[in-house]
Amino acid sequence: MSTATETVSVISADDLLKLWQGHRGLTRRTIEAFPEDKLFSFSLGGMRPFSEMACEFIKMAVPIVDGVATGHWEEYAGTQPTNKAELLAVWDRQTREIDERFPAIPAHRFAQVDMAFGRWEMSGIGTIQYAIDNEIHHRGQGYVYLRALGIEPPHFWER
Amino acid sequence: MSTATETVSVISADDLLKLWQGHRGLTRRTIEAFPEDKLFSFSLGGMRPFSEMACEFIKMAVPIVDGVATGHWEEYAGTQPTNKAELLAVWDRQTREIDERFPAIPAHRFAQVDMAFGRWEMSGIGTIQYAIDNEIHHRGQGYVYLRALGIEPPHFWER
Repeated sequence: MSTATETVSVISADDLLKLWQGHRGLTRRTIEAFPEDKLFSFSLGGMRPFSEMACEFIKMAVPIVDGVATGHWEEYAGTQPTNKAELLAVWDRQTREIDERFPAIPAHRFAQVDMAFGRWEMSGIGTIQYAIDNEIHHRGQGYVYLRALGIEPPHFWER
Repeated sequence: MSTATETVSVISADDLLKLWQGHRGLTRRTIEAFPEDKLFSFSLGGMRPFSEMACEFIKMAVPIVDGVATGHWEEYAGTQPTNKAELLAVWDRQTREIDERFPAIPAHRFAQVDMAFGRWEMSGIGTIQYAIDNEIHHRGQGYVYLRALGIEPPHFWER
């Protein structure tokens, strides 16, 4: 039996990368499920269109991996996608970049506390976990948009 | 530097419990933010009211902790809350039960693969992670309901 004082590892860096990329695959299929015009225009309750949520994920994903890896926190400097094909192309490039760069994060950097982007004081793992949770949260909102548009969203459990 | 082949622990059992309880606190405030009648009736896009999503979280939470801890997968046998006070009371009881029982999960059970509830073949950690992600996903949908009702949801970043 473990006890409350024993440190039991339950998620490794490799596990977390797989979990995140699984979620990113699901988010990609959610982007794809939107008709192009609705992706950039439709919303409910005065909220943002799903394209803007997806651009928020893009601004967080690779810049966070780079910040945790190196300690240098630089804002996303790429182009802002203005149509679905551009959005998916940036998405796919980031998926490759995350696969390349995440495994090179030095082990000690996950626990180390930084001021991420000069604003958020969190451990490396805390910042990565926040990005994943934020993506799940807003993608769930995209599901409501899709349902309201009469479109079946991708299965949540398929990653 | 870590390498792709090295196993780097990034989340411990204690971390995961804190993360989950932080999310559960936010979900509790989301339940509280709904006017009682809207909690049990309002929805968008033909989806479920938020009360039903919250009951789904309840059916997963403690039964999953118990299943991972013991290998016995028993469906939630408690009462189905029919008003907001009952829902919050069950929520708070489960919060205490999770705090009591989660630290007693034997270390080896997180990696061990079970047929959870006789239906889902997953590792202990996979099943717990699914419950957390499912809660984040549907709570995000509750946020859209609140916005559509003209109600400001709780801050996502406050746990």
